[in-house]
Amino acid sequence: MTGEFSLPIRVYIEDTDAGGIVYYVNYLKFLERARTEFMRSLGVHRAALTDDGRIFVVSQLSVSYLLPAKLDDEIVATALAHQVGGATIDFTQTVRRTDQLLLKAEVQVACVDQASGRPRRLGSNIRERLLATTKIERDEV
Amino acid sequence: MTGEFSLPIRVYIEDTDAGGIVYYVNYLKFLERARTEFMRSLGVHRAALTDDGRIFVVSQLSVSYLLPAKLDDEIVATALAHQVGGATIDFTQTVRRTDQLLLKAEVQVACVDQASGRPRRLGSNIRERLLATTKIERDEV
Amino acid sequence: MTGEFSLPIRVYIEDTDAGGIVYYVNYLKFLERARTEFMRSLGVHRAALTDDGRIFVVSQLSVSYLLPAKLDDEIVATALAHQVGGATIDFTQTVRRTDQLLLKAEVQVACVDQASGRPRRLGSNIRERLLATTKIERDEV
Amino acid sequence: MTGEFSLPIRVYIEDTDAGGIVYYVNYLKFLERARTEFMRSLGVHRAALTDDGRIFVVSQLSVSYLLPAKLDDEIVATALAHQVGGATIDFTQTVRRTDQLLLKAEVQVACVDQASGRPRRLGSNIRERLLATTKIERDEV
Repeated sequence: MTGEFSLPIRVYIEDTDAGGIVYYVNYLKFLERARTEFMRSLGVHRAALTDDGRIFVVSQLSVSYLLPAKLDDEIVATALAHQVGGATIDFTQTVRRTDQLLLKAEVQVACVDQASGRPRRLGSNIRERLLATTKIERDEV
Repeated sequence: MTGEFSLPIRVYIEDTDAGGIVYYVNYLKFLERARTEFMRSLGVHRAALTDDGRIFVVSQLSVSYLLPAKLDDEIVATALAHQVGGATIDFTQTVRRTDQLLLKAEVQVACVDQASGRPRRLGSNIRERLLATTKIERDEV
Repeated sequence: MTGEFSLPIRVYIEDTDAGGIVYYVNYLKFLERARTEFMRSLGVHRAALTDDGRIFVVSQLSVSYLLPAKLDDEIVATALAHQVGGATIDFTQTVRRTDQLLLKAEVQVACVDQASGRPRRLGSNIRERLLATTKIERDEV
Repeated sequence: MTGEFSLPIRVYIEDTDAGGIVYYVNYLKFLERARTEFMRSLGVHRAALTDDGRIFVVSQLSVSYLLPAKLDDEIVATALAHQVGGATIDFTQTVRRTDQLLLKAEVQVACVDQASGRPRRLGSNIRERLLATTKIERDEV
């Protein structure tokens, strides 16, 4: 799918729990890594963001856990920005193992002022780069 | 609210991130601690569950992040079981700081066979205890 | 033992790994919680520290893992400040389960400037409170 | 250095704390990832180990924290097996950022029986592969 970013991830013992599978909380770390690397692929580094006191925080998420990942698994976390608002980005994300869908998620990230916690508009650079990515995707749909 | 279980939690440095607030992933640990202590308060210990090869896994969750918790905060995580199915329990959960609602969540937990990952019916003991709790709550509504 | 601070901790699923025991890394979170609550018991809150740009960081640690903790265990993490330097505090710490010693550790914490990372002298309030604690302990030895 | 295995690691927000640096506990995850990939490079997969009920656990570690890693840093974790005992492997490990040494560690890993927790001899395959690696290293010293 155009616009979908994929990040390969290896499951380490740190990710698992006593049930013998990846701890449900830790998949959210995988999803954030994918969003971060997607942003980096657009030339947006988190450090640059915080230079002017803006940070990204997750404001909403919903996750469906379909199948568990296990120790040593090679999985892939994906991120697709499907909507860009004034101060928010909406992602559709998955975790897959080869042809199996392990997890799907909707994640809304908000740009806020680090000091006050209030919403702040996305920087124009970020917005343009995101819109360029999502426009390509929309055009093909 | 009857049937709502509350667990006080202190925010430690382990819970925070470079944004100076609790890392969004770590709230889900707080929610699980509250569910676990709620179950323990009903006399259901996780260890007992796994004796016969059943484990609880989160199958669905949705979270709204409203306000951030910070280092040293004293917060409260709550758990209310509002629906009990054959192999699932649906929780409404929150994280609060005094009178502020920081986060609300809907979490579905499924009982599965540890070996196969397939759904298994909740043990009758657990079901009865949960229904007793939720019945009280429903009666009052 | 005089001067030794004890913090009861419950082991949750978040603390375990696929080996069925507490993940070795997570004991260090327990040790930090004990140090933090010990400092708090002296009236030293981390937030107060960072008001003037000082933070505490671990500079050295050594750990002996003797026995594993498991899911649902009730354990106790201890912290004893046995030496207070200009910019460092040396702790002897343990994790126990009833009468079993699970882990022992030596941890050196350094006071540094958050911006530069350079050592900064402990605040005089903290130093006095720590010395009062450790003096009592030394007197009895 | 011959025999030293290197694993590049990106620092994500999950790794940091409110001090703005990598949380001291999380470096130990990086060290384990490096040990795991080193073992994998020898053809030893953790899964294979647990097939016959043996697991690796950390029995001793000492860490010197020299400089902090920060968000977005590209760092390298290294692992060098310098001694192989009957049931233990001793590693010297580091975390570096370009030419800076951030952390050095000595880590002893023990092979134990998962059920009993008692020491078990390393499998002969693992031993041979490790000795082959370390012998090369010793020969050059």
